[in-house]
Amino acid sequence: MRAMIIGRWQPPHKGHIEVAKQILREVDELIVGIGSAQESHTLENPFTAGERVLMLTRALAAAGIDLSRVHLIPIPDVNNNAVWVSHVISLSPPFEIVYSGNPLVRRLFKEAGFKTKIQPMFKRKEYWGTEIRDRMIKGGRWEELVPKAVVKVMREIKAVERLKDLSKTDYLLR
Amino acid sequence: MRAMIIGRWQPPHKGHIEVAKQILREVDELIVGIGSAQESHTLENPFTAGERVLMLTRALAAAGIDLSRVHLIPIPDVNNNAVWVSHVISLSPPFEIVYSGNPLVRRLFKEAGFKTKIQPMFKRKEYWGTEIRDRMIKGGRWEELVPKAVVKVMREIKAVERLKDLSKTDYLLR
Amino acid sequence: MRAMIIGRWQPPHKGHIEVAKQILREVDELIVGIGSAQESHTLENPFTAGERVLMLTRALAAAGIDLSRVHLIPIPDVNNNAVWVSHVISLSPPFEIVYSGNPLVRRLFKEAGFKTKIQPMFKRKEYWGTEIRDRMIKGGRWEELVPKAVVKVMREIKAVERLKDLSKTDYLLR
Amino acid sequence: MRAMIIGRWQPPHKGHIEVAKQILREVDELIVGIGSAQESHTLENPFTAGERVLMLTRALAAAGIDLSRVHLIPIPDVNNNAVWVSHVISLSPPFEIVYSGNPLVRRLFKEAGFKTKIQPMFKRKEYWGTEIRDRMIKGGRWEELVPKAVVKVMREIKAVERLKDLSKTDYLLR
Amino acid sequence: MRAMIIGRWQPPHKGHIEVAKQILREVDELIVGIGSAQESHTLENPFTAGERVLMLTRALAAAGIDLSRVHLIPIPDVNNNAVWVSHVISLSPPFEIVYSGNPLVRRLFKEAGFKTKIQPMFKRKEYWGTEIRDRMIKGGRWEELVPKAVVKVMREIKAVERLKDLSKTDYLLR
Amino acid sequence: MRAMIIGRWQPPHKGHIEVAKQILREVDELIVGIGSAQESHTLENPFTAGERVLMLTRALAAAGIDLSRVHLIPIPDVNNNAVWVSHVISLSPPFEIVYSGNPLVRRLFKEAGFKTKIQPMFKRKEYWGTEIRDRMIKGGRWEELVPKAVVKVMREIKAVERLKDLSKTDYLLR
Repeated sequence: MRAMIIGRWQPPHKGHIEVAKQILREVDELIVGIGSAQESHTLENPFTAGERVLMLTRALAAAGIDLSRVHLIPIPDVNNNAVWVSHVISLSPPFEIVYSGNPLVRRLFKEAGFKTKIQPMFKRKEYWGTEIRDRMIKGGRWEELVPKAVVKVMREIKAVERLKDLSKTDYLLR
Repeated sequence: MRAMIIGRWQPPHKGHIEVAKQILREVDELIVGIGSAQESHTLENPFTAGERVLMLTRALAAAGIDLSRVHLIPIPDVNNNAVWVSHVISLSPPFEIVYSGNPLVRRLFKEAGFKTKIQPMFKRKEYWGTEIRDRMIKGGRWEELVPKAVVKVMREIKAVERLKDLSKTDYLLR
Repeated sequence: MRAMIIGRWQPPHKGHIEVAKQILREVDELIVGIGSAQESHTLENPFTAGERVLMLTRALAAAGIDLSRVHLIPIPDVNNNAVWVSHVISLSPPFEIVYSGNPLVRRLFKEAGFKTKIQPMFKRKEYWGTEIRDRMIKGGRWEELVPKAVVKVMREIKAVERLKDLSKTDYLLR
Repeated sequence: MRAMIIGRWQPPHKGHIEVAKQILREVDELIVGIGSAQESHTLENPFTAGERVLMLTRALAAAGIDLSRVHLIPIPDVNNNAVWVSHVISLSPPFEIVYSGNPLVRRLFKEAGFKTKIQPMFKRKEYWGTEIRDRMIKGGRWEELVPKAVVKVMREIKAVERLKDLSKTDYLLR
Repeated sequence: MRAMIIGRWQPPHKGHIEVAKQILREVDELIVGIGSAQESHTLENPFTAGERVLMLTRALAAAGIDLSRVHLIPIPDVNNNAVWVSHVISLSPPFEIVYSGNPLVRRLFKEAGFKTKIQPMFKRKEYWGTEIRDRMIKGGRWEELVPKAVVKVMREIKAVERLKDLSKTDYLLR
Repeated sequence: MRAMIIGRWQPPHKGHIEVAKQILREVDELIVGIGSAQESHTLENPFTAGERVLMLTRALAAAGIDLSRVHLIPIPDVNNNAVWVSHVISLSPPFEIVYSGNPLVRRLFKEAGFKTKIQPMFKRKEYWGTEIRDRMIKGGRWEELVPKAVVKVMREIKAVERLKDLSKTDYLLR
């Protein structure tokens, strides 16, 4: 059986890797859908799809996950919820079950006849994209929340500098 | 004379049907523009254009309106206000007057040389999409605000379940 | 039962009206999907979706068809075949069977689990959009191929003049 | 050397003209990028790209700036930050330095290897699009904040009426 | 009076400059619409809008044309002929008359109520984009067909090399 | 070093797998860009991006290639050549060299400063997507041209039936 898990992974954190491991105990292959793939360089979505592919690949490999059982699929938004499930299906190998923490995602797949699940949770509220991006901007200790492999990519792409720049207020050209 | 009335009809309510009746006393034919046609499955726009076509057709017929005098036209957004009037014109039979409660809609048609009117109002504040959607989510009495024909379609498409699902908070995959 | 028939109706001709009549003997309601709705003013697609709505409405009414059993739905192209069926579904009341002369349309609906049919044919090769548009440009007798109601709309919108203009060769600004 | 300055110019004000003058003391040619070119008729972006081209051309000419040293380039949004710099480059003559008050704009060009600068400021907080649009809606003294040439275009296009219309609340068709 | 002339200018040639000069004898200002602005790097449209802006600016200046009487406006395609005129209007200062060698362009503006003209011609068939691009690929004498200022830009951007590369046949990855 | 190879893989054939093997002897990791990812169900592009991902993954694995050294990245078209390289970069982990048999692809990456190569060829003219699709339609022996793993996926998705259906002529609804 093949499962799909859909998120934005801005950035991937330790909780995400645990989720992936746990799902892979139950299914044969896992498709990791990278949502809002066309977004980057905003406070909400700072990293490109390609940067997220790289972070996920390295973090999954470092966690000992067999990459031949995982497919990473960037999924650009379509801004039309009624066609979104078809769009995801067209970009991905076939799957039977969908994990997501997003109720819209689960609703859309449910209406299309898919089995959906809230993914297993690792509740500590630090494992949360918003918290991590906030710490990066304010100079907090974000490194402990993400896998070492992700920290390394973050440094290569100067992620902290990017987030700090983006958080400055636009004040003049209005 | 042919009139255009533009709304989102999320969902059509009793006030809308009264408006249609009243306008049809003044003009020969009425075009019902279904705005934001590409939107669905959000709290603001829960229903697809097709679902709205079905609700409107049945509610208008049940109200005794002669459907040969009415055209239902789904109008997807174009995200460029300067071309929106041309877009509406291209999708619709010709019309001379535009009714809308939306000041942007009236402004755009006015600049294009159309006669515009605020549609006749049925002021009771319950006849209001936001109120109806809110009652559906919170388990209130929404059925009395919409025509019976609309209630019936709502049940067929499990509308209350959809709205409740969409109102759940997204908490994990951020 | 509700059926969908999808075409471009550039323009609607007598064969189309016969098809609609025949299908309406077999089903309760007929949805007429107006494909490539965003196209107009080309030799292949000279008429806007709105002009086609007007021609179809009048021709169907003149043929004695009960308009409360017919839905006209403009369907803009999406340029992604894999999501096209979802797109059509989202714009239309529900339907169970699809008629089309276009093999791609039938294939896409077949893969989505719909029953599909080649529509009943009225074979005379004059009942054919290309032939009609060609006669309009060359000054031939096109009027006998389309319903009188369509001829009337054609005159109102100066259709022959439009087609002749569009057929002129672009020669300078290349 | 050629410089690019990017803004939305909704509307161009006296501060903008001073900025242009000052930059033109340092570089040979100035490209004025008109951002969000597809936007108009909203409270945030009331004027079309064409209206902004006209206001800027006249105000720059009235300020004695040699128009052969200035290029006005409308730049529609692309909603994909990762390709936005390429998009700007493709629409514009080549440039080496970018002025902008928008930190996202500066960040994107910096990552693409461009020299970026916060433009010279004329700090009085009145020289600020939001302030000007607000005064226009509320009947305040906005004319003193923009060049006379801009006031003239505003009158021709009935800008105050447009802004007041757009500021009315949408209350019925929800 | 302000006139609009619309073309693709791939590339601007001597005939184009003569046309501009002649129109400027009849009107106050000339808007040069650069059509298919989003196209580049194809055999039909090898140059970006920005490259065409640069070529036109320099060639017009070299011909002694007062640039304060000319506006260059890149116009991306919209793939919906019915909204194209509104799109052009929104990007440009107001104009009253349209020159074009393209019958579709003239037809669309005519239906929108504009005065249209086939532009004055300089018939020699060499003054023709297709001919020039063909000579560039085959090593012919294209330089005599375009203004010297255009030849200079062509060299800066290595235009001949680009066209030759694009003309190679794609043979393997099909 | 990481290399990118871009193709449409409609379908992947034995020549493609040999190319991948050979490049992987020279570089550390290979990114396989799946071009025109939004296309499917046409004679030129019959398979969805997801189907191509599945075919490639299985064929590469069956050829003994270590999947942790390969990234498969679906790349939707953008219809603007000037931003296409940025678009590819944003979807992919970083790379230094680009292999392609398409001269436009090589030209665009060359202008962006990348090293480009015509990929190593396996010239037999059977290893060619057009040939394979043609044999599938005409009932020829296509199976010998693609890896066994691809044949298996083709059977699962009823590829031959799809291609035959798509090759039928559209004859009526014109």
